[in-house]
Amino acid sequence: MTRTANELAEFLAVTLEGDGSIQLSGVAAPESARVDDLIYVETPRHLDRAATSQARCAVIAPGLALHGKTLLRAANPKLVFARAAAWLLPPAPIATGVHPTAVISATARLARGVAVGPYAVIEEDVEAGEDTEIGAFCFLGRGSRLGEHCRLYPRVTLYAGAWLGNRVIAHSGAVIGSDGFGYVAEGGKRWKFPQVGEIEIGDDVEIGANTTIDRGSLGRTEIAAGVKLDNLVHIAHNVHIGEHTVIAAQTGISGSSIVGRGVMIGGQVGIADHCRLEDGAIAGAQAGIPTGKTIRSGQIVWGTPARPLKKFKEQFAWFGRLPELAERIGKLEKTIVQGKA
Amino acid sequence: MTRTANELAEFLAVTLEGDGSIQLSGVAAPESARVDDLIYVETPRHLDRAATSQARCAVIAPGLALHGKTLLRAANPKLVFARAAAWLLPPAPIATGVHPTAVISATARLARGVAVGPYAVIEEDVEAGEDTEIGAFCFLGRGSRLGEHCRLYPRVTLYAGAWLGNRVIAHSGAVIGSDGFGYVAEGGKRWKFPQVGEIEIGDDVEIGANTTIDRGSLGRTEIAAGVKLDNLVHIAHNVHIGEHTVIAAQTGISGSSIVGRGVMIGGQVGIADHCRLEDGAIAGAQAGIPTGKTIRSGQIVWGTPARPLKKFKEQFAWFGRLPELAERIGKLEKTIVQGKA
Amino acid sequence: MTRTANELAEFLAVTLEGDGSIQLSGVAAPESARVDDLIYVETPRHLDRAATSQARCAVIAPGLALHGKTLLRAANPKLVFARAAAWLLPPAPIATGVHPTAVISATARLARGVAVGPYAVIEEDVEAGEDTEIGAFCFLGRGSRLGEHCRLYPRVTLYAGAWLGNRVIAHSGAVIGSDGFGYVAEGGKRWKFPQVGEIEIGDDVEIGANTTIDRGSLGRTEIAAGVKLDNLVHIAHNVHIGEHTVIAAQTGISGSSIVGRGVMIGGQVGIADHCRLEDGAIAGAQAGIPTGKTIRSGQIVWGTPARPLKKFKEQFAWFGRLPELAERIGKLEKTIVQGKA
Repeated sequence: MTRTANELAEFLAVTLEGDGSIQLSGVAAPESARVDDLIYVETPRHLDRAATSQARCAVIAPGLALHGKTLLRAANPKLVFARAAAWLLPPAPIATGVHPTAVISATARLARGVAVGPYAVIEEDVEAGEDTEIGAFCFLGRGSRLGEHCRLYPRVTLYAGAWLGNRVIAHSGAVIGSDGFGYVAEGGKRWKFPQVGEIEIGDDVEIGANTTIDRGSLGRTEIAAGVKLDNLVHIAHNVHIGEHTVIAAQTGISGSSIVGRGVMIGGQVGIADHCRLEDGAIAGAQAGIPTGKTIRSGQIVWGTPARPLKKFKEQFAWFGRLPELAERIGKLEKTIVQGKA
Repeated sequence: MTRTANELAEFLAVTLEGDGSIQLSGVAAPESARVDDLIYVETPRHLDRAATSQARCAVIAPGLALHGKTLLRAANPKLVFARAAAWLLPPAPIATGVHPTAVISATARLARGVAVGPYAVIEEDVEAGEDTEIGAFCFLGRGSRLGEHCRLYPRVTLYAGAWLGNRVIAHSGAVIGSDGFGYVAEGGKRWKFPQVGEIEIGDDVEIGANTTIDRGSLGRTEIAAGVKLDNLVHIAHNVHIGEHTVIAAQTGISGSSIVGRGVMIGGQVGIADHCRLEDGAIAGAQAGIPTGKTIRSGQIVWGTPARPLKKFKEQFAWFGRLPELAERIGKLEKTIVQGKA
Repeated sequence: MTRTANELAEFLAVTLEGDGSIQLSGVAAPESARVDDLIYVETPRHLDRAATSQARCAVIAPGLALHGKTLLRAANPKLVFARAAAWLLPPAPIATGVHPTAVISATARLARGVAVGPYAVIEEDVEAGEDTEIGAFCFLGRGSRLGEHCRLYPRVTLYAGAWLGNRVIAHSGAVIGSDGFGYVAEGGKRWKFPQVGEIEIGDDVEIGANTTIDRGSLGRTEIAAGVKLDNLVHIAHNVHIGEHTVIAAQTGISGSSIVGRGVMIGGQVGIADHCRLEDGAIAGAQAGIPTGKTIRSGQIVWGTPARPLKKFKEQFAWFGRLPELAERIGKLEKTIVQGKA
């Protein structure tokens, strides 16, 4: 889509400085930008990159000067840039129309504008809301439901009964609603504990490539609105994740753990079962949170077993000085022995 | 399936107390149970939840009282509940019949009752035993073999020659028999070491979503009967896993490691190559077991590098007290200097 | 393929001792070898296994004696064995011809010898070089490009515009070019930062099963020639990985990190964003490298946060002796108090 800088300024509700008639059709980093790409500058140290860029228009923080370019002034240039990008570059369609090779049950209810890619399989009683796009090789198990404007990239599996809100994005290889990992032991063997619960994914959730989310065993797995899950994340049965929580790649959350709103979880974090992370808690990368542990609201933790970041850093500093401490103990012992002698 | 409480008691071989004529058609947690759902009560602290449940029938531990409901007495209520669930709620079919879009080699041998979903691909010389279900988009490479009553959810890949026993369950996205990660270096470059070995999965194994299991390089990768693998687990070439071992999500086991029977491995555990975990060993979540290490039978280990849990806890307790220890050393040093002065 | 030992010796440019007329058609470990399998012996401790093997021909290190077999002498038997294996056992075809069920855009350009498996989907403007094999259920998004002699196992996804070199191998479930994990926060909610950059995979790269590689956000994700990625690896947006670097299973590399040439990264390593691993650096399994950290060329690191291996070992040894150190401090305190008393 091509827009003038003026149109963009109006859409973004920001002030324009310079030539508002130039055309913009994309976004880029300063180095790779072409003349019709928008760039952004947040701090003075990025001004040089921007000045030598071919781009003619930049979203720029207040107080920064950049000569010879059209400027869009914004307190948060990165945010405004992201919104501009979403407007200039609507995502390419994942599917257009309903491909003739899609296998769609007669009892599925696809709303107006639903697009289905080649070889998708849509079982009985599936519902999909308006303009939802379902990529090639997606499998929507019986009774699964998607809201409006969802985007399932090729090769996403919804197990039977999975329930997705509006504007959910799921990347290739994601599996939603698989059986939880629960067994009852009997003499060394294991019986499968029933994994017949529900799974509900809220509005505006994004699910990374090859991420897996298990359904509830008897209860429900819930991913609230606005949650973002990176690639290869594992969410176990009966986990609840609060709104706008962000979870980086390869993190795993075990059964029945409750994660609050606005929590930030780094990559490769392990959260054991029955934990509770209160609203706004932060778990650093590779942290390990043992069974049943609570992380208080706003607390930042790191390490395995996880402890408050400040404490971790203090302990870790002394850990690095262990050889020195040992030497000092040795000296003390010598001194005392000599003192006695 | 609907059964009376009497029928259920007989099937489960447990004692019934109360009205045996009530109908049961499902299982649930006490909070979400409907009148025809079965619930279970293991401990006194769950009695309140059960008492206010709409469910009319509960599996209950000896000695617990629950008025107004039909009770099924069992020493292990959770186990009996699981068995009841498997009877009342047989898993929904993954496929029924052989879908006309499935691409099946003329040389494949599918036993009676094998069901194949849409767009599955079954290559030359594949064998599948009676009543095995093969989901949509499954790929069974040439010469792969499945036993009876297996359940492959949509989008499972068996590389050529993979060999599965009876009643194996594989969840969506699982990859079985891929090449191991082995190279021979020559001047900075790498030649692929042959990955032409075998892979054998025993009876009653369950394989989680997006889990990957590599074939042997020259030898064989073996997953014995009853093993349960959670989601996103990685099993490398030539690994052997003994019967009834349980491995939680995102754990990785490197080449040629041997895991015994009844071993329990937590989530995100890393086991390097050529390790040995003897029967009944336990590795706590995120533990890291270095190359060639042996974990003795029945031992519980934690941490990286992994050590006995008791030792880990003792060391870790002192780790938390490092700032205090450092302070005490400082005081000692001061005292001695003063003593000397 | 069947070859005589003489032909093999000539192809491998090694010296033959013994009967050069015997036929060879495969490779194996000594225990499972049949008469026409080649084996290899690197060290004296493997001589016994070789001597009792049914194999009649072995690649063997200089100075080792093995009676009654045809010997191929090589300074690096494992390397020569790997090269022999590649010659005797060319990989089985992933696809032959273009399967009639493949959905291929009229604007796709498939070179001579390209093979496409059942139900593959190839979108507009895709290019594939000579003799490239594309397995069943592969999805090649619009404008993606593959070089010659690539091998995509069944069920690989290339997002639009992904660019692969020659002889790239991608295993089942790999996802190449998915969106990076980048958002801009606004009042608790998150806007998607544009993920519209490029992704380029060099020649001779191998990508493991269910591994995910995100495209650049604005810039480019680059995996240089000869890189080997194991299963379930996560490579984030804008990461650059230098030639011949090897990364073991379940490792994750966060946005904009730069990994040099010939780097070796163990399993389950976590590398935060904006790190730099210089050429030849080594990160031990489960190491955690914090944001922005540089690992110098040739350095070996371990632990979280990662530090030089030698330092880690020294610190860790003292960690194990913490109970003892604490006891010694206690004794010192007692002695001094008594001394004072």
